[in-house]
Amino acid sequence: MSTPENNYIEHGFLAKTRADEVPALGYTAYVIDTCEDVTGRILSATRSSMTPLQRYKAIDRRIKQVEKAAEARQKKRGMDAYCEVSDFAGARYILYTFLKLRDVRVAYVPSRPIGEYGGETDNWMWPRHAADFSFLRAYVAPDGQPAEFSKANVPYRPKRYLRVAPEGIKDGEFALIIGFPRVTHRYLTSYALAEYETLGFLQEVKLSKQMVSILEHASDEDLGAAVRVAGRMKNLNNYIKKNTGVLEGFKRFDLRARRAEQERWWARRVEADPAARDKYHALLAAFKSLYETRALYATKDLLLENATDTGLLGQAMLIYRWSIEKAKPDLDRESKFMEREIPDLRDGIAIFQRGFDPASDRAILKMLLKEMADLPEGQRVRAVDAILAQILPGKSPSGEETPRDAALDKYLDGLYLGTGLDTDEERLKMFDLSHDALVKQADSFIALAASLFDEIQEGLDRRKAFEGALDVLTPQWMEIVTRESGHPAYPDANSTMRLNYGVVRGYSPRDAVWYDPFTTLRGVVEKNTGVPPFNCPARMVELARAKTYGPYRDAILDDVPVDFLTTHDSTNGNSGSPVLNARGELVGCLFDGNYEAVSGDFAFDEDLNRSISVDIRYVLWVADYVDGAENILRELQRK
Amino acid sequence: MSTPENNYIEHGFLAKTRADEVPALGYTAYVIDTCEDVTGRILSATRSSMTPLQRYKAIDRRIKQVEKAAEARQKKRGMDAYCEVSDFAGARYILYTFLKLRDVRVAYVPSRPIGEYGGETDNWMWPRHAADFSFLRAYVAPDGQPAEFSKANVPYRPKRYLRVAPEGIKDGEFALIIGFPRVTHRYLTSYALAEYETLGFLQEVKLSKQMVSILEHASDEDLGAAVRVAGRMKNLNNYIKKNTGVLEGFKRFDLRARRAEQERWWARRVEADPAARDKYHALLAAFKSLYETRALYATKDLLLENATDTGLLGQAMLIYRWSIEKAKPDLDRESKFMEREIPDLRDGIAIFQRGFDPASDRAILKMLLKEMADLPEGQRVRAVDAILAQILPGKSPSGEETPRDAALDKYLDGLYLGTGLDTDEERLKMFDLSHDALVKQADSFIALAASLFDEIQEGLDRRKAFEGALDVLTPQWMEIVTRESGHPAYPDANSTMRLNYGVVRGYSPRDAVWYDPFTTLRGVVEKNTGVPPFNCPARMVELARAKTYGPYRDAILDDVPVDFLTTHDSTNGNSGSPVLNARGELVGCLFDGNYEAVSGDFAFDEDLNRSISVDIRYVLWVADYVDGAENILRELQRK
Repeated sequence: MSTPENNYIEHGFLAKTRADEVPALGYTAYVIDTCEDVTGRILSATRSSMTPLQRYKAIDRRIKQVEKAAEARQKKRGMDAYCEVSDFAGARYILYTFLKLRDVRVAYVPSRPIGEYGGETDNWMWPRHAADFSFLRAYVAPDGQPAEFSKANVPYRPKRYLRVAPEGIKDGEFALIIGFPRVTHRYLTSYALAEYETLGFLQEVKLSKQMVSILEHASDEDLGAAVRVAGRMKNLNNYIKKNTGVLEGFKRFDLRARRAEQERWWARRVEADPAARDKYHALLAAFKSLYETRALYATKDLLLENATDTGLLGQAMLIYRWSIEKAKPDLDRESKFMEREIPDLRDGIAIFQRGFDPASDRAILKMLLKEMADLPEGQRVRAVDAILAQILPGKSPSGEETPRDAALDKYLDGLYLGTGLDTDEERLKMFDLSHDALVKQADSFIALAASLFDEIQEGLDRRKAFEGALDVLTPQWMEIVTRESGHPAYPDANSTMRLNYGVVRGYSPRDAVWYDPFTTLRGVVEKNTGVPPFNCPARMVELARAKTYGPYRDAILDDVPVDFLTTHDSTNGNSGSPVLNARGELVGCLFDGNYEAVSGDFAFDEDLNRSISVDIRYVLWVADYVDGAENILRELQRK
Repeated sequence: MSTPENNYIEHGFLAKTRADEVPALGYTAYVIDTCEDVTGRILSATRSSMTPLQRYKAIDRRIKQVEKAAEARQKKRGMDAYCEVSDFAGARYILYTFLKLRDVRVAYVPSRPIGEYGGETDNWMWPRHAADFSFLRAYVAPDGQPAEFSKANVPYRPKRYLRVAPEGIKDGEFALIIGFPRVTHRYLTSYALAEYETLGFLQEVKLSKQMVSILEHASDEDLGAAVRVAGRMKNLNNYIKKNTGVLEGFKRFDLRARRAEQERWWARRVEADPAARDKYHALLAAFKSLYETRALYATKDLLLENATDTGLLGQAMLIYRWSIEKAKPDLDRESKFMEREIPDLRDGIAIFQRGFDPASDRAILKMLLKEMADLPEGQRVRAVDAILAQILPGKSPSGEETPRDAALDKYLDGLYLGTGLDTDEERLKMFDLSHDALVKQADSFIALAASLFDEIQEGLDRRKAFEGALDVLTPQWMEIVTRESGHPAYPDANSTMRLNYGVVRGYSPRDAVWYDPFTTLRGVVEKNTGVPPFNCPARMVELARAKTYGPYRDAILDDVPVDFLTTHDSTNGNSGSPVLNARGELVGCLFDGNYEAVSGDFAFDEDLNRSISVDIRYVLWVADYVDGAENILRELQRK
């Protein structure tokens, strides 16, 4: 909702009444209703004679059937549910039933200098002093069912809600978090770790940095562009910092070599038993060959994905693929194009406009085209080769820089002039066209998407075959891991709900240094330079100097606690997880991990891995003393 | 003694026998014999009617008389002593009698990657992992008296020496240091602090950075130059880092404003007593006018000092001034040109050659000439103006850059071609000439020094008048400070011997961070990247991994302690101070302060100011396991 004139990101937002709340575009609230093990039903769709790709498709289709049937069953019971089957490493499948609330509104967000205090400098870092929280409210139709935004909607009333623990939490105290951690990779083979290290992170970080540099340039040129690309830039920077840290962690903990050593150790253990030995070596050989095959196309697929997942070309590809998918029966479609997803897709197409900056969109596309033009033989993109042959007749495509650069500029001039996709009306209109009608529009971006379509599909099939093969190998591998490690291996995160236990605890990041688990208001003032990202409001400095702590003071710290550390095993997707004390009361909100621990996705280290949360007492202090959000505090029964 | 071929700085040095020890050129050992209060004798030379300059000169001359008489007395007793009167803020004068041992030799120095581990990156920082120690041995003539280097000399045997405490020291334990802290400024007025902040540090740091950048360039070009300028660069970098920290401390602690607030508070307290009030305000007004006058010439004097204190021009100025001073009776000379100092001056002139790099010498002189050419009216250097008028006839001296630059280059070509001062033989020869004979040499650098001489003298007289005035004002000011602060104010450091008490203790550098008081061998390995300045020998990493700690292990740390923190109030000049336990046994060697505390010279903060020492157990571990210095360990009675 931010615009240069109404910059909520910078200045914060407080709705003094419900009527003042604004739509939180793009936000959806999922409320879990039930979950059910459906492993038997899913795996009965497979036969051992299937190829990996056949197996993947069979499972994919069966999952859609189960989800669709479950939603139909709920509908009969009068509930507008959203059902989803989650895959636990190919070994178990769980069906989740959600209420999916689409009318979400912003009630209160602190200003950026408070909420994002420390910005990129402090991101992933401890000691941290960010009030990283927002208050959103979900609305439903008067009958209690999910509904699109409407003035007639009423606030959703959950069966249960969390109570605030006004006394907060202490060093060493037990704590729980509930959240939806996206993905961890704790049980990979050394071949998979090698892929992450050499291909995944290095190349992706390099590409992301090129994009950030383009977006920074655009932001410097134009305040409007700066507001539009702020979200994307933040995501990219976050990604870069995290993955740079992961790479450092790979080196610091020597992850790949240690995993390979483990594999050799296990190999020696099964040496005496010929059957076990042959099975073990066959399994490792299968993993090895799987990752070797993938490496052949890794860079090509990475560039194609980046080009066709985001930006204007991403919109064109989405609309073009939908024009093909819409002709299929629902169960035959790619899952993201199933009937139930169409409202979200449509929203996404509208919301795209808010982040669209033509200059940087074009610069990023140009950069990606040049990267593709420089791919080695065997990985080349046929559609891009065709374009290069057309704009640079008779020249080697990766030849001299200046003519290629100029020719690409000319090509892009035509491309951006020949499209109507740069307005949301036009995109939404094209979204609804049949395939033939869409192609007849002769839109330049749609034509580019069409020319890339076959290669995108090939990449998708490669990925599906890979996943299908992993679905067979991984359960066998996990048997070995579990047996050899001598204790039950808890599953990797897979975006399903997870309850984590831990305690509040500091850590030693390096020799002779100890990090305490709490930061304080005093520390906010200590970091304040008056220059972003360390520019807290003058009022906060005054309040801190006057020790105006109110009921939010911690007796041991003699200050308002700001952020705190816990030992929870969290990752991306846990941001926003409530932190609960032993009585299940809210004491904070998790929003980050520490830099030393970002490689925790691959190997958890009890001494170093920490989660970072904002203390509920700081949330309340900011709401109370800085922003005067009495209505929010009243609702939380604090005033 | 280091050369590119025999690089002791880089590779370390171990004399396996006494005969292998090499002269530590430029090093002198002072051994205190007695000290005596001579305040009455000194101040009886002054009269209240004297101008500040007259007063300064009277005291200066009386000091020289007292020193000379004392040395003569010692001589009669058969002792070749060095006597020095030290000034305690104009209120007390103490006569120190030393043995000055000039034959000092290097016995053992660890290699740079160990001794200077962390280099500039870690300088002034904690956690620190440097083995900052050297073993030197002082020699005397067979009769026990100080002597120049000679094969016939024998090791000096002190009346007392320190015993090593093999068990080291613990967190919280009491410790003493003995050393010669150079200078602190704890009791300055806000006017003096303003001068340090705005003129002193800012301008001097800027100038030093320009010099470092020139020396870095020279080092990159030529390995020989790199070795020659290493010492100077290290000093400059150390100075820059320290004074940048001091400036940060001025801001962090708001020193100037707080001192001014104190002065206003004291003003309110004396308001009721007219006599006290008038005296207080007159005193403050005198300080204010003193610093205002000095500010008029501050930049000019800074540039002149830098140009004529170092480099080839420094040598020329020294030789030229000596040619004038040598005609005067000893007591009338500037103290650095008194008879007893001449051997040191002569040594300095010889040693200069080892650090002399013509290219950077010239580049620094050019930079300083340009800075002087850009001085505002009223601060201009007449001699430089005369040069500019000669090389740029008819042009504004601070006019267009290119012609001035080219003209300066041409001038410098002539200057460096027209001098013989670039060899030590020639310099020593000129050092011995009479004034007339020297001037007749028509050496270009001597001529430049002669043209600057009057203005250097004017600057010197300005400084003497300033010091003379301070000598009167400071004791009155100290009376107020002592009365108002309610407890005795211990004197500022003034390069005399000081015994300090303290304890081993960590500190919190910022919110949520605690620094432990000990670092460990584990931490050395943790920092090791293999790239300077973090490139410890592979052997050390192996020893640490194998936990080869020997008798140097600390039970609590389960490791060899490396460096440690104490609460001592130390400053420049304390480097090398022995750290003693409560039984007076050696537990370490102080070599640095922490960055948060460098402004401690102006205001000591008990929570933040720490001294950094190398643990004697690390010294012994390195000598024993890394360098195999059995002979050193035997002498320390460790083996």
